[in-house]
Amino acid sequence: VSDSLPLVGLMLGDCTGIGPEQSAKILASRGMADTARLLVIGDRRVLELGARDAGVKLDVRVVKRPEDADWNSTAVQMIDLANIDPASIKRGAISPESGRITGETLKFMIDLALEGRLDGIVFAPLNKAALHAGGWKYNDEHIMFARLTGHQGFHGEMNVLDDKWMSRVTSHVGLREALDQITPKRIDEALTLAYETMKGAGFANPRIAVAALNPHGGENGLFGREEIDVIAPAVVRGAGRGILCKGPFPADTVFIKGFGDEFDGVLTMYHDQGQIATKLKGFNRGVTVSGGLKTVFTTPAHGTAFDIVGKGVASTGAFENAIRLGARLAAARKAKVAAAGSYANANL
Amino acid sequence: VSDSLPLVGLMLGDCTGIGPEQSAKILASRGMADTARLLVIGDRRVLELGARDAGVKLDVRVVKRPEDADWNSTAVQMIDLANIDPASIKRGAISPESGRITGETLKFMIDLALEGRLDGIVFAPLNKAALHAGGWKYNDEHIMFARLTGHQGFHGEMNVLDDKWMSRVTSHVGLREALDQITPKRIDEALTLAYETMKGAGFANPRIAVAALNPHGGENGLFGREEIDVIAPAVVRGAGRGILCKGPFPADTVFIKGFGDEFDGVLTMYHDQGQIATKLKGFNRGVTVSGGLKTVFTTPAHGTAFDIVGKGVASTGAFENAIRLGARLAAARKAKVAAAGSYANANL
Repeated sequence: VSDSLPLVGLMLGDCTGIGPEQSAKILASRGMADTARLLVIGDRRVLELGARDAGVKLDVRVVKRPEDADWNSTAVQMIDLANIDPASIKRGAISPESGRITGETLKFMIDLALEGRLDGIVFAPLNKAALHAGGWKYNDEHIMFARLTGHQGFHGEMNVLDDKWMSRVTSHVGLREALDQITPKRIDEALTLAYETMKGAGFANPRIAVAALNPHGGENGLFGREEIDVIAPAVVRGAGRGILCKGPFPADTVFIKGFGDEFDGVLTMYHDQGQIATKLKGFNRGVTVSGGLKTVFTTPAHGTAFDIVGKGVASTGAFENAIRLGARLAAARKAKVAAAGSYANANL
Repeated sequence: VSDSLPLVGLMLGDCTGIGPEQSAKILASRGMADTARLLVIGDRRVLELGARDAGVKLDVRVVKRPEDADWNSTAVQMIDLANIDPASIKRGAISPESGRITGETLKFMIDLALEGRLDGIVFAPLNKAALHAGGWKYNDEHIMFARLTGHQGFHGEMNVLDDKWMSRVTSHVGLREALDQITPKRIDEALTLAYETMKGAGFANPRIAVAALNPHGGENGLFGREEIDVIAPAVVRGAGRGILCKGPFPADTVFIKGFGDEFDGVLTMYHDQGQIATKLKGFNRGVTVSGGLKTVFTTPAHGTAFDIVGKGVASTGAFENAIRLGARLAAARKAKVAAAGSYANANL
């Protein structure tokens, strides 16, 4: 594994779910060896449980610090936090204890990343209810990550499917509150964030379709004026900043455009607008990105899949895509840090 | 053509679009002869233009009144309103004059239906902008039909695709106004309307999934309380009335359920919720129904397709589905009238 590859922390996900099995399968295949230097961080017993589920053998080399990893070795490099014994946890069900430890492990990894010692974090499926029950009481993991990274300002979930990027102006709030949040400033921030993140993922000049809010895009003001007063001017401002954005397009056709050849992604106004479309398109194959934070976070879009835990049948495609995308974003981040001379100077 | 078949008025659509060509193709094929007694109502010159576009020859028998039609004849039975000369109208573009006459023709047909002289109305694509420009200033054609039929109370657009029914609690209003319209009474009415209309279309006991409003269905009140306070109680009341309804289900998965085997349709809370899903699924193949009015209205979901007018390439599948569905609904309506003894007594 080349030292020039980004150093990505691999988190096994909630140990009650399919994450450990998926992680073990991917690590055993060594299919990511050309993509990233993957450092597993978590409890070794959880990884070993995953290897048994997957029916694979893993050669694990435990290290104390990221700097101690041996990237010439073919062994799995791992920091063993020894913080949860999976034998003590019922699998395939929500566990507050597992949720609590999952959050602790993520916090440990985030602290390493903020010290510039990991270039990014990729995690297997979390369980939001378990995190909540375990004391990590945030509306979503993106807000949790923002808090743990000390982030101020706009950030947000993005969903990537077949290399198409769905971003949001508003997310995990009631629809009434979302309407109040759709302000010029917030659309500007969301558009810029989509643009910058997609550039980090490798688009030279991402083409973004902006969704309307009201039916038929407001039908010239007959069905609401947000398009005229708020969204269209934001698209004009975005184009003025050099972003290849167009719209607003009526929400019921913007995804047909977005999944076509004309655009690389869609900026949506609210959660279900994008999620109805991406879930119908096969959301579970996709990748979720926490955009705009001080480190890179990617994860497969699917969940802990409690119904198939321990059966050895979990597929790994979405998780592999998450690792690839996380590595791309982390490499861009690493290059920025190198150019700035230090992590602190990079102003991430 | 059997006299027991419903008598359905066939309207050629806006003469600037593909409707005349589609109508001519369908009539020439006689493929609907076992489905309905189709009485064309419009301008004979428009139908003849459509026949030229389609490359078909039609034997047309003009009658003054529906009662004069000869259903033993293989000729196309038509009331010639002689109200628009297509040679005077530019095709493939919005024409206020065509919009005005389109509305007049629909009004003529509606008046016949209200006298019990047509069992239903099926129309080729209208052009909303042309109707508006022609003086029929309604937010949508369903509201126009409600006004012209003297309807009071709830009614609404339904979209039928692959025999799955998408209904709405709110429709062509801004999203903010839609939120205000989502009341217990209106959900009750929309659920009952979906149930009754689907029964009229042949479902013995339609199974209806009810969509939530907020992300994740409100996440137990964390992202909005409409599910708890308004929608879930309406589902309970619906079940109490004998409707096989379930929900509320989060909007980003309800359509995966709705298009699966478990349900026959989805009751959505607002326009784009359903339309994002159905357009991605292939909306243009579908049928639009104006539910809850005093007569039956169906139409293909697609529009006037100005880009292919006059080329002879318009497909007729969605329009044929609209005729079949209109005929089913009209037959149920006809049976109700027969049971009641007269149209006036049927309380439609």
